[in-house]
Amino acid sequence: MEPTTRDSACFEAGIKFGALYHQFAGTPVSPDSAASLETAIEESIENQPFCESVEVEILTDKLVEEIDHGYTELTGKFLEVEIVVEQEGTEVVTRMAMEDGYPLMKVESVKEK
Amino acid sequence: MEPTTRDSACFEAGIKFGALYHQFAGTPVSPDSAASLETAIEESIENQPFCESVEVEILTDKLVEEIDHGYTELTGKFLEVEIVVEQEGTEVVTRMAMEDGYPLMKVESVKEK
Amino acid sequence: MEPTTRDSACFEAGIKFGALYHQFAGTPVSPDSAASLETAIEESIENQPFCESVEVEILTDKLVEEIDHGYTELTGKFLEVEIVVEQEGTEVVTRMAMEDGYPLMKVESVKEK
Amino acid sequence: MEPTTRDSACFEAGIKFGALYHQFAGTPVSPDSAASLETAIEESIENQPFCESVEVEILTDKLVEEIDHGYTELTGKFLEVEIVVEQEGTEVVTRMAMEDGYPLMKVESVKEK
Repeated sequence: MEPTTRDSACFEAGIKFGALYHQFAGTPVSPDSAASLETAIEESIENQPFCESVEVEILTDKLVEEIDHGYTELTGKFLEVEIVVEQEGTEVVTRMAMEDGYPLMKVESVKEK
Repeated sequence: MEPTTRDSACFEAGIKFGALYHQFAGTPVSPDSAASLETAIEESIENQPFCESVEVEILTDKLVEEIDHGYTELTGKFLEVEIVVEQEGTEVVTRMAMEDGYPLMKVESVKEK
Repeated sequence: MEPTTRDSACFEAGIKFGALYHQFAGTPVSPDSAASLETAIEESIENQPFCESVEVEILTDKLVEEIDHGYTELTGKFLEVEIVVEQEGTEVVTRMAMEDGYPLMKVESVKEK
Repeated sequence: MEPTTRDSACFEAGIKFGALYHQFAGTPVSPDSAASLETAIEESIENQPFCESVEVEILTDKLVEEIDHGYTELTGKFLEVEIVVEQEGTEVVTRMAMEDGYPLMKVESVKEK
């Protein structure tokens, strides 16, 4: 019943995903401003505890396709994200991408060293 | 290396916490509007997958103490939260409260049925 | 060139709209949780200076139409909002609704008493 | 009673400020990640209609002073912002800085061409 380090590492990875998504969803974004937003998202979330790396790709092709007024609001359908957390030797790799019309976040692998 | 249901349930609990915090941090709040905000936070996060229950307490005493201009922005020091996730028979209880000046989120217990 | 009270009142009304939209866009919402979210949005934004009233309607019919997984993220297409600001005797009425696929915010009237 | 272009330009400037503040308040930030966040905020808000320029300064000296755990959440006390809006020949210059412990947003000048 006591949580393990592995439980905690998975929980921490989830926090990063929830934070990333709900902090930045709704941000005005265009193909031209996508690169600076990717960098800012990565660097801001990497500040959080146990966060090894964050890789964000904003799908500019999809932006171009869907934009009517020069820009739109960032939402899951324009995002692919990988976040790696390491806590006391346990590494958790997590990923977000669209699946069945929904931005699915999932654990890809857990490695206990 | 393959993630287990338990890993996934802990990850899901983390997502709810990150979402809750980064969606609602910054919301204008006063002692009078705290109750409606608590309810809205609980009901909105409970929409998310596997989320059994969300209990939010906004610390109105602390709000009264610190407010200068009739209201302030919601932040971790005014919040206590418990979130319970259940995924395929695994129940994860998680909690957020201030610890050492920082809004600490942690796993309290994991029960595999 | 010096700003007038009227300029300031219009500016204040804009602040409330930008705040409302970017604070709450992305919030998980379902037909069942829409009412508590409406109330929380109204009461939180009414805390801000010079804000006389905020009326929020979340379009639950539209939610029902578009929801696939039990809930969705709040965005402009599900929202109608009226905000009234009063500053030193100048009243500004502003409104947001969808127009041409875009959540248009505009000044409806300005009354100088 | 009908709103003028000048009213609308002031309202638009307010929208940008409310959007900027409530989109990005709460973002994890450290002295090292401040520069990328400044750029992303500027470029994202400049996407919005009638927005001529956005200049954001995150006060890294103040961050260094107040940070305990390597990073903190972005809030008004770490921000100085200037936003210029132009709508149909009317230019509105607006600014945010701390005043009396509160992040005050105000109209600096309105120029009708």
